[in-house]
Amino acid sequence: MQNIYAQSLDAVAANYAPLTPISFLERAVFVYPEHIALVHGELRQNWADTWQRCRRLASALRQRGVGEGDTVSIIAPNTPAHFEAHFGVPMSGATLNSINTRLDAPAIAFILQHAETKVLLVDCELHPVVEKALHMLHQPPLVVDINDPLAVEGKAIGQLDYEALLAEGDPEAPYHLPTDEWQAISLNYTSGTTGDPKGVVYHHRGAYLNAASNAMSWNMPGHATYLWTLPMFHCNGWCFPWTMAAIAGTSVCLRAVRGDDIVKLIVNEKADHLCGAPIVLSMIAGVDKALLDGLRHTVKVMTAGAPPPASVIQKMEELGFDVTQVYGLTETYGPCVVSAWKDQWNDLSMSERASLKARQGVRVPMQEGLMVVNPDTMEPVSRNGQEIGEIVMRGNIVMKGYLKNPHTTEKSFEGGWFHSGDLAVWHPDGYVEIKDRSKDIIISGGENISSIEVEEALFRHPDIEDAAVVARPDERWGEVPCAIVKVRDGVTLTEAEIVAYCRSSMAHFKAPKRVLFGTLPRTSTGKVQKFLLREWAKEDATVETENNATEASSN
Amino acid sequence: MQNIYAQSLDAVAANYAPLTPISFLERAVFVYPEHIALVHGELRQNWADTWQRCRRLASALRQRGVGEGDTVSIIAPNTPAHFEAHFGVPMSGATLNSINTRLDAPAIAFILQHAETKVLLVDCELHPVVEKALHMLHQPPLVVDINDPLAVEGKAIGQLDYEALLAEGDPEAPYHLPTDEWQAISLNYTSGTTGDPKGVVYHHRGAYLNAASNAMSWNMPGHATYLWTLPMFHCNGWCFPWTMAAIAGTSVCLRAVRGDDIVKLIVNEKADHLCGAPIVLSMIAGVDKALLDGLRHTVKVMTAGAPPPASVIQKMEELGFDVTQVYGLTETYGPCVVSAWKDQWNDLSMSERASLKARQGVRVPMQEGLMVVNPDTMEPVSRNGQEIGEIVMRGNIVMKGYLKNPHTTEKSFEGGWFHSGDLAVWHPDGYVEIKDRSKDIIISGGENISSIEVEEALFRHPDIEDAAVVARPDERWGEVPCAIVKVRDGVTLTEAEIVAYCRSSMAHFKAPKRVLFGTLPRTSTGKVQKFLLREWAKEDATVETENNATEASSN
Repeated sequence: MQNIYAQSLDAVAANYAPLTPISFLERAVFVYPEHIALVHGELRQNWADTWQRCRRLASALRQRGVGEGDTVSIIAPNTPAHFEAHFGVPMSGATLNSINTRLDAPAIAFILQHAETKVLLVDCELHPVVEKALHMLHQPPLVVDINDPLAVEGKAIGQLDYEALLAEGDPEAPYHLPTDEWQAISLNYTSGTTGDPKGVVYHHRGAYLNAASNAMSWNMPGHATYLWTLPMFHCNGWCFPWTMAAIAGTSVCLRAVRGDDIVKLIVNEKADHLCGAPIVLSMIAGVDKALLDGLRHTVKVMTAGAPPPASVIQKMEELGFDVTQVYGLTETYGPCVVSAWKDQWNDLSMSERASLKARQGVRVPMQEGLMVVNPDTMEPVSRNGQEIGEIVMRGNIVMKGYLKNPHTTEKSFEGGWFHSGDLAVWHPDGYVEIKDRSKDIIISGGENISSIEVEEALFRHPDIEDAAVVARPDERWGEVPCAIVKVRDGVTLTEAEIVAYCRSSMAHFKAPKRVLFGTLPRTSTGKVQKFLLREWAKEDATVETENNATEASSN
Repeated sequence: MQNIYAQSLDAVAANYAPLTPISFLERAVFVYPEHIALVHGELRQNWADTWQRCRRLASALRQRGVGEGDTVSIIAPNTPAHFEAHFGVPMSGATLNSINTRLDAPAIAFILQHAETKVLLVDCELHPVVEKALHMLHQPPLVVDINDPLAVEGKAIGQLDYEALLAEGDPEAPYHLPTDEWQAISLNYTSGTTGDPKGVVYHHRGAYLNAASNAMSWNMPGHATYLWTLPMFHCNGWCFPWTMAAIAGTSVCLRAVRGDDIVKLIVNEKADHLCGAPIVLSMIAGVDKALLDGLRHTVKVMTAGAPPPASVIQKMEELGFDVTQVYGLTETYGPCVVSAWKDQWNDLSMSERASLKARQGVRVPMQEGLMVVNPDTMEPVSRNGQEIGEIVMRGNIVMKGYLKNPHTTEKSFEGGWFHSGDLAVWHPDGYVEIKDRSKDIIISGGENISSIEVEEALFRHPDIEDAAVVARPDERWGEVPCAIVKVRDGVTLTEAEIVAYCRSSMAHFKAPKRVLFGTLPRTSTGKVQKFLLREWAKEDATVETENNATEASSN
């Protein structure tokens, strides 16, 4: 018998369009051309002008031979140009690669080479590190300087300026729309458990769905005002540039994350939504109270990277902020798990509420699956809040894969799920709670640091015999790298010397903040027992805190 | 040169899932099992129980041999069973066909036969017309009685009862999820310009996207409470059963649309969202003011079918309702055009605001294209608010096509756009405004009436020589059918006789409410000049209104 619903009912131009966030931009500019899309200092740029600039960027890139399959990289703080690149680059057909501004020159050079970058947009303040990186390349890309008027200082290192590039473009020229929603839209490098960063590829379908999922998950209304405390180079700002187009909202740009600036912009620009690592919350909670006098609206905050401490949540709530913890990885377009709040929890005590908010939560509306499993059997763990397993996800908000890395891609998708590498328990109500990070990653101020990368540097020191790096709890940064080092017999090395050595060969934020000396505990098969080192580092941090407290009280 | 983004980055189980609204249900029950999904009289049914019942329905249907490619029809008011069918039927793999409860027996029989319905769920109050329809079929489907406790009267006409069917099912049995998001999810018959109704097929992808688009377009927050004033048999209630799962909201059921009941439920159940034809607004505006005393929250109302009159909008706003006009067709999953409001319009006068709200608007977030074109050339008309053209749409919220009707499907998709048949102007700000309906459709109380169907009935009368049916403006129904009839020489026929004749052969709401006698104006090629008849009908309505006013004032 024939299926009557499968006859002459095919996809055609009238009833099928590949999902792409460019469609959200098209609608925002069509319906709300006069609404402000971008605020940056004194600048007020509406959607119509933003559209013109994105189309110019797309056209200029195409005229210079950039198209599908090519990479356009950008390294910049959260400026209008960075926002525009999220549309203009895909509208040229190319893939957007937004680079972490805190990386050192070798890491940047690695990325530019691995991504085969054709064009690099550089914020003028970042010239020292980028210039160094470019010198390491055999075939440097076309370099375009973004001379942001709000930059403190800057030097032109490129062949032309961003505004000159836009001037080359024709805002009326046709632009690229994907014919296949599986087409790559962006490339984000992540520090994984292996040394070299991996290039995580997103597609138009996932970017579109996550943009919508953000709005739904957060009850974000049309025209919301979003403050850019979260770097756009983190998972494309968790896809919020595309969310802002979907809701025709206003993005308030921010070059540097400082508590005072954040609060001033919240008050003056009436920003009502922002995202960031817990350190952003701590900064806000730490500002002079007088700055918050003008605050008359509720500000919704999404935070990820580590559970916000109860004291911070309490302080934020008192100040009129509504904090939601989310969780995800670069591989899942940023957060795809949300600690969804329930009204019946409103009446619980502060500490009970904080411990509920400390759980990472449940899948967001447009992610399909989330489980905690035994990674060997792929069987879910008991939902008893006790048994530990690995967090795995599946669905449309999972990356295409790792660029030029089919083996790791396949491995990370084993068993039909993406393996997060994070260890968690599953509570009876279905909320997941991370109990331990995958052992190699340290998250410091929202940045991923691969312990292996730091270990490799340590091992390069001629006087170091053995070394391991683990996370050490830190009030300010959440975690900092802590090195445990065994120095070769007969030599002496100080903590300061080791830290300085590391800083000479990597981004400063990756260098250990603390060095402990001793012999590394290993299993019978030779694996370092990092959980023991983590306890040592934690104990060391506790002792330091207590000492500080003693000092403070004796002053 | 190879495209590096097209290598080893294919869709696999971990990173691709077909879009389906079943996923929204899965999430609602997982995260908010205890939240109330359905209110019906005294019934409070949470998402966990709703899930169990949907799975039982799916399992019972599968056990009875129903699966992909099959049709399950339902004819019922807005009851919990009708809501459950929107999930349970697709979860069996079958296609849901929700039938208009106001149709007459031949129309119902036609649909059941054309859809090749395997199982028919019937609300017990609808037994007379359904029984008649079943007698017209050679191979009647399995009939299941829904014995709704809130039905006023009822008779069992089926082989078993809905609860008995659910009892057959196993809530733990595996259920169907589409392997292809293009799979049909539902089938909705529409009265078109041709005589027989056409079966409009929706797919899982479109249902998913429109469900999300509804929430985004309307700023609908999580856990919103939706009052079911809009029939679920209209475009699957504009896809709102699926939206309610996406936001884990509460659906307040309603068997019959009456002003008092609506207002009581708004107040008592704190319903904050509802949809309906303008007549629903008129009903609300017409209730005893005392009923609205308890109303403390804003109620958002979406209305379609005809622009709400300024007086009704004003009254509704005074009562605390926020009215948005939307527009669409069965072929576009219901509304896919929204009269999106702009804050800068808030300060305009009531009449200016009403004329802005009377425009149908712009595309919803997840529809891709909307234009007003010359249908012969497919060139857009000038955006001057003057030039008239046809409204066309394209994108993911356009039907798969018409069931078993490839010719009409192809024709309706000509030029890569869906042809609405509605005539409109395009304003400079991009908002469309309908100026004339496609000439054959009359929209009465939100119901489509094909004038051709009524004309065919008139033509069957031996004493009628010529006839045409057009819309006549009506305060209560928006429009009613008005027949213009030329009686054969030498015979007499009264208005009442003609109306009675029509009512004997069609649903009563389709029969002309008014008959005018005269010769039909025709073009040189013999086409009836309906625009002249419409003016005549309109004039006739005006005279009647004035007469009523004179009578009222002389009393």
